[in-house]
Amino acid sequence: MNLNDLLKHTSEWLKGSGPHSDIVLSSRIRLARNLDKIPFPHWANKKQAEAVLNQVEEAISKIDYLRKSKCFRLAELDGIDKQFLVERHLVSYEHTQKTDYKAVVIDEDEILAIMINEEDHLRIQVMQSGFNLFEAWNIISQIDDALAKELNFAFTSEWGYLTACPTNTGTGMRASVMLHLPALVMTRQINRVLSAVAKLSFTTRGLYGEGTQATGNLFQISNQVSLGHSEIEIIENLSGLIRQVIEQENQARQTMLNRNWAMIEDRVNRSLGILKSAHIISSQETLELLSMVRMGCDLGIIKNINRSIINELFIITQPAHLQKIENKKLSTEERDIKRANLIREKLIGK
Amino acid sequence: MNLNDLLKHTSEWLKGSGPHSDIVLSSRIRLARNLDKIPFPHWANKKQAEAVLNQVEEAISKIDYLRKSKCFRLAELDGIDKQFLVERHLVSYEHTQKTDYKAVVIDEDEILAIMINEEDHLRIQVMQSGFNLFEAWNIISQIDDALAKELNFAFTSEWGYLTACPTNTGTGMRASVMLHLPALVMTRQINRVLSAVAKLSFTTRGLYGEGTQATGNLFQISNQVSLGHSEIEIIENLSGLIRQVIEQENQARQTMLNRNWAMIEDRVNRSLGILKSAHIISSQETLELLSMVRMGCDLGIIKNINRSIINELFIITQPAHLQKIENKKLSTEERDIKRANLIREKLIGK
Repeated sequence: MNLNDLLKHTSEWLKGSGPHSDIVLSSRIRLARNLDKIPFPHWANKKQAEAVLNQVEEAISKIDYLRKSKCFRLAELDGIDKQFLVERHLVSYEHTQKTDYKAVVIDEDEILAIMINEEDHLRIQVMQSGFNLFEAWNIISQIDDALAKELNFAFTSEWGYLTACPTNTGTGMRASVMLHLPALVMTRQINRVLSAVAKLSFTTRGLYGEGTQATGNLFQISNQVSLGHSEIEIIENLSGLIRQVIEQENQARQTMLNRNWAMIEDRVNRSLGILKSAHIISSQETLELLSMVRMGCDLGIIKNINRSIINELFIITQPAHLQKIENKKLSTEERDIKRANLIREKLIGK
Repeated sequence: MNLNDLLKHTSEWLKGSGPHSDIVLSSRIRLARNLDKIPFPHWANKKQAEAVLNQVEEAISKIDYLRKSKCFRLAELDGIDKQFLVERHLVSYEHTQKTDYKAVVIDEDEILAIMINEEDHLRIQVMQSGFNLFEAWNIISQIDDALAKELNFAFTSEWGYLTACPTNTGTGMRASVMLHLPALVMTRQINRVLSAVAKLSFTTRGLYGEGTQATGNLFQISNQVSLGHSEIEIIENLSGLIRQVIEQENQARQTMLNRNWAMIEDRVNRSLGILKSAHIISSQETLELLSMVRMGCDLGIIKNINRSIINELFIITQPAHLQKIENKKLSTEERDIKRANLIREKLIGK
């Protein structure tokens, strides 16, 4: 497997299948783990960082389940490849900066990604399509158990797993769900919903994690606290909240349809019309139009377009993807043209 | 022939044929004529106005060439029909107000329209598709000669034809050309061109005559002075000016294409994409998008769409046309939906 192979298929989490996949794109769980007695990455010297990388790689090679996965050293990747991994949600943006002794282990289906020497020695991530946190938890805890047999994780009975940032200490877990909430945005209820989410100590972010603006009406909701509750409790709490948000989005869609079916039908069809006909299109406009088309598919206004194509377009129209597909560096203007071509190709086959 | 029959065909001037029909939609000549010894319509009493109407109707009935034309009394038409005639450029807006003793004579192809008791007793108009002022002049002068045999026109050898407004005195002629100038607008040269037109004592108006704003990048240029020159001289002067404007528009198109082909291709295709997919659309947006599509046809960016369909859509998407097609009164919201349906029907057959 090399990075180009990833282009050839749709990642597991983009398949558009799984429970509530009309509103929930994907569920993700990540665990922060550190090796005992070695300083956290930001404080580790070169030798220590290298030791971590080698130990983790060796451990992974011994685990049957991970045999098909591959380790990429970030320092060996060019700028486009690094951005490509960020766009596919396989590494954080931070992980692509100062890349010495940093690596990422990825399996073929992109269900699993393990960042090595990011903020913690290990950041293990499992993604699933749709609203599927428990399945993600089942998979990641097996991997965690298997790694724990090979590696000595920093853990105290009082604090749980120790992490570089105290907000992760305890379970070291962050569970998150990527939601598509166009109707809550269009009916201007989103701020009310997000402020309720914040009051319940959950965090909302945009498509590309911390600090990114919500684009394409995509919102990532995750737990803020990882200490004082078991993993299952955290997942159950988050799941309960997500169910409510799904319910609110469904209600907003219904209200909108009842009040203004014609306006929605117009907006959805125009969005598809523009995507099918544009010859220059920005990333931002693409996300907004795809969001409307995705909702149109959910509502039955648009037929014959598979939700997985829309999900895939959300990702492959990003700058690094376009450059990998074209296999060369492209300027912003060239990308806007290539992006429009790619969208037309996917949506109308030309 | 009744007014509904007009819906069934494309008016002569919208056929999209004739010289320079990529840039010139239509050419129009109108003559103002008044009956001798009867006050102009604004000063005429009811009896005098009625006499004018009867005399003109009788004269028309005697002219072979006009046998197939039909006279409509404005007072007998409902609001939608009157607006319908305005939208088809067969009567002026003013002619639909205070309609006593006002009438319009129209032939089947809508080449000819004679308003009776508008500002002058007769306003004879002939329209031709494309840049075809001389052909329009040939037709209208035959009609004028035939009418002059039946009617006694107010004329002095010193002033020429006498008219209600002194600006029309002399030839009583106004020649005008409807131009589609998207590239001059997009390259921001239009104001320079229009101010040159004004300095040469010609007038520019929008799609719907005096005082209307230029929409859909359509501009009507006509002579301002009708005294002191022969009809042929006026037509020659206007034609010379129009040829220059056509040249400027062609140059602007070329410059635009050379500098920014991709942007034009995008804008044209998006415009067509939106027209094909919108389910609600305003009159104003329709005109703007049609303008881009028309230019796209001219430039070969869009193929397989006949220019006459675009020309027709400019007219039939107007409010009264939509209501006549639907055969009932429609609110603005209903019209915006009907308009979008009609456009989709014409462009994609559904």
